Amino acid sequence: MQHFAIGLAGMGNVGAGVFKHLTQNRALLRERLGFELDVKKIALRDINKNRGVDFPTGIVTTRWQDILDDPEIRIVVELMGQKEESLRFMLGAIERGKTVVTGNKALLAEHGREIFDAATKHKVPVFFEAAVAGGIPIIKAIREAFIGNHIRSIHGIINGTSNYILTQMTEREISFTEALAEAQAQGYAEADPTLDVNGWDAAHKAVILASLAYGFWVPTDKIFVEGIDQITAGDIRFAKKLGYAIKLLGIIKADENGEIEVRVHPTLIPEKHVLASVNGVFNALAVHGDVVGETLFYGRGAGQDPTTSSVIADLAEAAAALQSPRSNYGFMPHGLYGTCKPIDQIVCEYYLRLTVEDRPGVVAQVAGVLGALNIGISSLFQPEGTEGEAVPLVFVIHKATSAQIQNALDQIGALPCVKKAPRMIRVENFA
Amino acid sequence: MQHFAIGLAGMGNVGAGVFKHLTQNRALLRERLGFELDVKKIALRDINKNRGVDFPTGIVTTRWQDILDDPEIRIVVELMGQKEESLRFMLGAIERGKTVVTGNKALLAEHGREIFDAATKHKVPVFFEAAVAGGIPIIKAIREAFIGNHIRSIHGIINGTSNYILTQMTEREISFTEALAEAQAQGYAEADPTLDVNGWDAAHKAVILASLAYGFWVPTDKIFVEGIDQITAGDIRFAKKLGYAIKLLGIIKADENGEIEVRVHPTLIPEKHVLASVNGVFNALAVHGDVVGETLFYGRGAGQDPTTSSVIADLAEAAAALQSPRSNYGFMPHGLYGTCKPIDQIVCEYYLRLTVEDRPGVVAQVAGVLGALNIGISSLFQPEGTEGEAVPLVFVIHKATSAQIQNALDQIGALPCVKKAPRMIRVENFA
Repeated sequence: MQHFAIGLAGMGNVGAGVFKHLTQNRALLRERLGFELDVKKIALRDINKNRGVDFPTGIVTTRWQDILDDPEIRIVVELMGQKEESLRFMLGAIERGKTVVTGNKALLAEHGREIFDAATKHKVPVFFEAAVAGGIPIIKAIREAFIGNHIRSIHGIINGTSNYILTQMTEREISFTEALAEAQAQGYAEADPTLDVNGWDAAHKAVILASLAYGFWVPTDKIFVEGIDQITAGDIRFAKKLGYAIKLLGIIKADENGEIEVRVHPTLIPEKHVLASVNGVFNALAVHGDVVGETLFYGRGAGQDPTTSSVIADLAEAAAALQSPRSNYGFMPHGLYGTCKPIDQIVCEYYLRLTVEDRPGVVAQVAGVLGALNIGISSLFQPEGTEGEAVPLVFVIHKATSAQIQNALDQIGALPCVKKAPRMIRVENFA
Repeated sequence: MQHFAIGLAGMGNVGAGVFKHLTQNRALLRERLGFELDVKKIALRDINKNRGVDFPTGIVTTRWQDILDDPEIRIVVELMGQKEESLRFMLGAIERGKTVVTGNKALLAEHGREIFDAATKHKVPVFFEAAVAGGIPIIKAIREAFIGNHIRSIHGIINGTSNYILTQMTEREISFTEALAEAQAQGYAEADPTLDVNGWDAAHKAVILASLAYGFWVPTDKIFVEGIDQITAGDIRFAKKLGYAIKLLGIIKADENGEIEVRVHPTLIPEKHVLASVNGVFNALAVHGDVVGETLFYGRGAGQDPTTSSVIADLAEAAAALQSPRSNYGFMPHGLYGTCKPIDQIVCEYYLRLTVEDRPGVVAQVAGVLGALNIGISSLFQPEGTEGEAVPLVFVIHKATSAQIQNALDQIGALPCVKKAPRMIRVENFA
């Protein structure tokens, strides 16, 4: 039986899971694949750290260069989660003709073009199912299963930490700060949760998905990203009153002209939509293809085991591709011929929460500003409760560009009856 | 650019969709694949039938043998939906070294072993994503994405017609007969809906899924199949009162001893479970793997376009495999070493609806029978309403084998206070 030697760079949570499950499910994999996957070298930083998994110390090194220098190793797994170092490792592997499996979403989002250009040049495949949505096979679905589809849109809950926080805020009516602290206590948020709560972890995944769907690497500076750290318990309560849940969504869409939009932001979505019922650390992606119609993929988006499931599937495919080299691994981005619509021009609906003086005439003033800017109001309501001498006032805006709404917010914020900077959250009705 | 000649056998709804979308999305496919997929011959029965799609009459034949005899055709699509004829066509294609793409679930369920043995012998792959759950890439997910997982269970809503009927019965409180008539009027049920409503369409899909998950072709006579035609509006109402929805589920599970169970039957599932919110003609499959954990796949399970999406993905993969032949296409059933548990031994929970005399002491008699048989009662209630001089009485049974419950039903049915044959529906709590 043929054996494939694997080099594992990075022995954090996922690295340890990959080693553990390759060992535990070895018989299953051997039977299904007809070959063996052997971890020949592990590169890690701290030899003495307890990883909850036993591996022979003889295969351990602290230099990832040792993996590159081993000619028997034809498949490398990059799970270091670094930027420059991971990039050097991956490009080094590609140059040496090694197949790369990675879960490094930030690196792919920022250096995808460079990495895949190198891979094309050296004729080695790069697999990255683990980079988006943990155990959900969304890369495979888009690249392979929906290859005959124009992707109309993808709406994804693709950051488990944010979704856990928003779920706690919704179910238990606690503040963002409390929910974040709890997520950290539960191990669902890092000590430094910045990339999770500011939306950029989701944004990296959205860039990868958009690139697969539309065939060009979307530059990270062309997308719009907003996190959940400004969402209040009040927003969630008011949204609920309007029939909406608030979720951090990655939205990827193409319009009739082939212009695409890629954005990540907290979003009011109808409570009846299936994405609204995706709670806790779970991820889900609604993919709409022109042939297949509406689909949805749901599962654990992070964590050792789900992510490991994706890495192992990639390893199996990497080894099979070494047995019989393919010219095609499903659709890959290969050019720069698409256009990414600037957020200013993107049309959507909006929720506006104002803090206003509690007196007659205020609604007329705000409505007057919106009317003068030709912005339609779908609904408005005045929730109960006061903030000092002021009261909240909530508007839902029909359709406007971000530029229009920003203009409106500036003018509304300058009204004397408006006591705080207005708060705006986008709305998606899946119309 | 390389061209692959395809022979299309069967030009019904899906066949016409395949031709239409291969044509409409030709540029997209060419760009993504780097080769062309050309339909070179179409075999159909009735040349004059209007299929809503234009194709050159020069490529049409009424003899599928013409496709087999054309040496340029290296990929055939079997969409005739026949039994013996489809089998002869597929085996003929395999013997001639042609790759087969099919959506024929009944044929795979009943002759899968024969077909795949022939495919192994002649070293040609057989692709069948379209055979299960229309546009949902569930075959790819199980064969490839979850290759490193022991599949613990699959719970699937895999018959759109049944789900449409049950949804209508639930939402509009109409009878099975009315809902079926409406499904036929809407085009969601065939003129002869037997295979949909008696559970066998779902059972064919369950056999395919079980075979992929557990590595042996499960004989169709070893599985338990019950349709939805005996479900009443009352059952749906009573289930709702207990917090359950009724769905036709395909259930595939392995126990600790490696014994598997495959069954299709109407099932009470908790209203809060995500499968309970899968309505209308949509399909969904909850797959639990030992590494990936809980996942769910959702989409349209039938119809021209969704099924076409899967056929095109298979065609793309078939052609890529011709360019670079692989030894492995993900896990395939390859032996007969598993055991399928007989329904008599399968343990589950049950809903029992009795029609009993409206007098004190009846509950005690029925409970006495259950108690003597050592069967525990989780709950019971007496719904409002009467049936003549009798009244309904509903029990939920904790855990029992089918053999036990059948014995109980026989004894309960024989009680003088019980006026009609008792009705039993299985319950799944996903514990």
